Amino acid sequence: MADVLKLRCSVCGREYAPDEVQYACPVCGQVGTLDVLYDYALLRTQLHRDQLISNRVQSMWRYRDLLPLKPESHVPPLRVGNTPMYAAPRLAADLGLVEAWVKDDGSNPTGSLKDRASALIVARAQEAGITTVSTASTGNAAAALSGIGASVENIKIIIFVPATAPEAKIAQLLVYGATVLLVEANYDTAFDLCYDMCIEKGWYCRNTGINPYTIEGKKTVAFEIAESFNWDVPDVVIVSVGDGNIIAGVHKGFVDLFELGWISRIPRLIGVQAEGSLPLVTAWEQNVSAVEMQPIDAQTIADSISAGLPRDRAKALRAVRETNGAFVSVPDSETLASIPAVARLTGVFCEPSSAITYAGARRALELGYLKPEERVVFLLTGSGLKDVRRAQESVSGGLRVAPTAEAVRRVLHLE
Amino acid sequence: MADVLKLRCSVCGREYAPDEVQYACPVCGQVGTLDVLYDYALLRTQLHRDQLISNRVQSMWRYRDLLPLKPESHVPPLRVGNTPMYAAPRLAADLGLVEAWVKDDGSNPTGSLKDRASALIVARAQEAGITTVSTASTGNAAAALSGIGASVENIKIIIFVPATAPEAKIAQLLVYGATVLLVEANYDTAFDLCYDMCIEKGWYCRNTGINPYTIEGKKTVAFEIAESFNWDVPDVVIVSVGDGNIIAGVHKGFVDLFELGWISRIPRLIGVQAEGSLPLVTAWEQNVSAVEMQPIDAQTIADSISAGLPRDRAKALRAVRETNGAFVSVPDSETLASIPAVARLTGVFCEPSSAITYAGARRALELGYLKPEERVVFLLTGSGLKDVRRAQESVSGGLRVAPTAEAVRRVLHLE
Repeated sequence: MADVLKLRCSVCGREYAPDEVQYACPVCGQVGTLDVLYDYALLRTQLHRDQLISNRVQSMWRYRDLLPLKPESHVPPLRVGNTPMYAAPRLAADLGLVEAWVKDDGSNPTGSLKDRASALIVARAQEAGITTVSTASTGNAAAALSGIGASVENIKIIIFVPATAPEAKIAQLLVYGATVLLVEANYDTAFDLCYDMCIEKGWYCRNTGINPYTIEGKKTVAFEIAESFNWDVPDVVIVSVGDGNIIAGVHKGFVDLFELGWISRIPRLIGVQAEGSLPLVTAWEQNVSAVEMQPIDAQTIADSISAGLPRDRAKALRAVRETNGAFVSVPDSETLASIPAVARLTGVFCEPSSAITYAGARRALELGYLKPEERVVFLLTGSGLKDVRRAQESVSGGLRVAPTAEAVRRVLHLE
Repeated sequence: MADVLKLRCSVCGREYAPDEVQYACPVCGQVGTLDVLYDYALLRTQLHRDQLISNRVQSMWRYRDLLPLKPESHVPPLRVGNTPMYAAPRLAADLGLVEAWVKDDGSNPTGSLKDRASALIVARAQEAGITTVSTASTGNAAAALSGIGASVENIKIIIFVPATAPEAKIAQLLVYGATVLLVEANYDTAFDLCYDMCIEKGWYCRNTGINPYTIEGKKTVAFEIAESFNWDVPDVVIVSVGDGNIIAGVHKGFVDLFELGWISRIPRLIGVQAEGSLPLVTAWEQNVSAVEMQPIDAQTIADSISAGLPRDRAKALRAVRETNGAFVSVPDSETLASIPAVARLTGVFCEPSSAITYAGARRALELGYLKPEERVVFLLTGSGLKDVRRAQESVSGGLRVAPTAEAVRRVLHLE
């Protein structure tokens, strides 16, 4: 386990003791998401990279020594993390890259990377004796929290969603036994109501950005990337960006490893947004700060990354700026076409917000933000089975044939 | 690698050299599915159980020494197998069992256990220099073959489906780049047409039952079950049954291990069918042979196990009869209710044909086919994300609230 040394605001830099503040910076408000910092000098003397090699844990808890949990604390049983990293030579060739890899985080238990965050949040709730965990989300975060919650005893999950959320998305939450509140308002109001109720009732609030520990769970994906390259990290990691919490988590993971001296550099991070939801692209291009950013009306088919004012905008901008990365945007038509492209080039069927990294890489190459000789990891954050409707839109139908060999030969041009 | 010694018909017992016959028994026809047999006496001297402990391969290829592949042959890169085995104390308590486990095979790359079969079939096709693999299926087998096919170079996948197959199911195949033929006929005709075309064109036919090697892939799930219990196998494995190929694969895996002397007994296998598709339950209860079985008109919401005349009926009946197991059936209403039950008791969201094992266990306990003190593994064969529509039907909706704390307190009875 790692003792949390302090929490630091990603906007103003104020520092707090770990038990002094629970959520965002009291001075900056919600934009001031907190970094969880450790005593890296001490950890350097206690932990050794090579110890991990003999650790046979096949999940994110392999890195438990770098996570904010007490040694005696229980962790949820679902196998989160340890997701596959596949060499993707055909994807690389298609894009004109020398070397490409895909990290398939859609293979997590509820189908997305968000399981990493929810697993840590539920573990911390149990450690603190909190029996209710709540979040506002219609998507992967809610499914992850509901699923991880169902895997343990005596944790109640309450999800706040706009009443207009699609029934198919809500079904997964209900199946896991979560209490789902259909709030007659928009997402932002549901988010605030969730937070207010958590404060009032002492529930643990998993809301993205608000809770500094989601990133501590998500950072394990960076640990896995680094370890799968034997600590010689790739040049670039391409990540789709909505609220910015995932790219911030990837960044935090590499920063932790760098501070420990386990890696000698941090990969460049390229964030991909949908053209209809690109506030971070705009802020990055115009050199605007997180505090100055204004909400836009976000619209994209990649609903996992639709965010008008990204909750973790401060950390997301920092992740790209500090790593000499870039932000690019992609129109929905290209995102849609990326679903079959990634599936056919790698065998991984992912959701629109993951497939978008393919079109984003092409854009980054065109703009010179990505060089053909760089070694690139595509982070695929969610399973394609999460959004079969979009997959349907991305392909044309099968070939109708009469039930005869002759008809088959004709339609396949086999005569 | 394991050299195939011979193929033996599961109906008449005739034996063939491995290269003498490719598909079913030439004498018995399609009912005569073949067993793939090895020189167990030789393998006993060559292989040692404890060698596996030091093998760090995290996939079904961990057991490559027990699979029919040449040492130099490539295997598809997707990480198939090595699926989680979860202790399920709440599931056990709910059913009145002392000890229960769930094996989550829905976590395979395309979302079902069928990946195990398709991975071996594609590897064998590549080994033989065959570049087209084909099957008739609308469900998990087709998705698995398409996905595994997309993960390798130079393999073309052709899927035969009835033209009436649901578009959402076909979408996943098309995304992976498979050629999908919508045959204007029923499933049986599509199956036969697929087989005929394979024979005519030299494509490798993955059709269930016809191809004896699908079971060699599926048997790896039994290897994993045995190893996760440190070779002290559970008393009972509960498996849903449609065509019978999975229960036969589970059986074959345990038989292989028993023949090698790695396990001292074979678990009892309990097969669960839907009431609307229960030909094997009937045959078992009435002591009818596979050859005597007649087709019925199968109807069930658990479409992965809908089969009017199970293709692998001979092996499925044998698996239950030889292990002193049982067949039980479950009405669709109980299958539907089992989806949230399993999810809430274990954290695993599975498709109807997996959840049915929960209701099936209850039935087996009532009938005395299962004893409360037996150690039971529930084999969950497919992800819940495969069939979100049925999940939606299995739960009631969320709670509508006005966007105020007072409304939330009231609806949650927190006043």
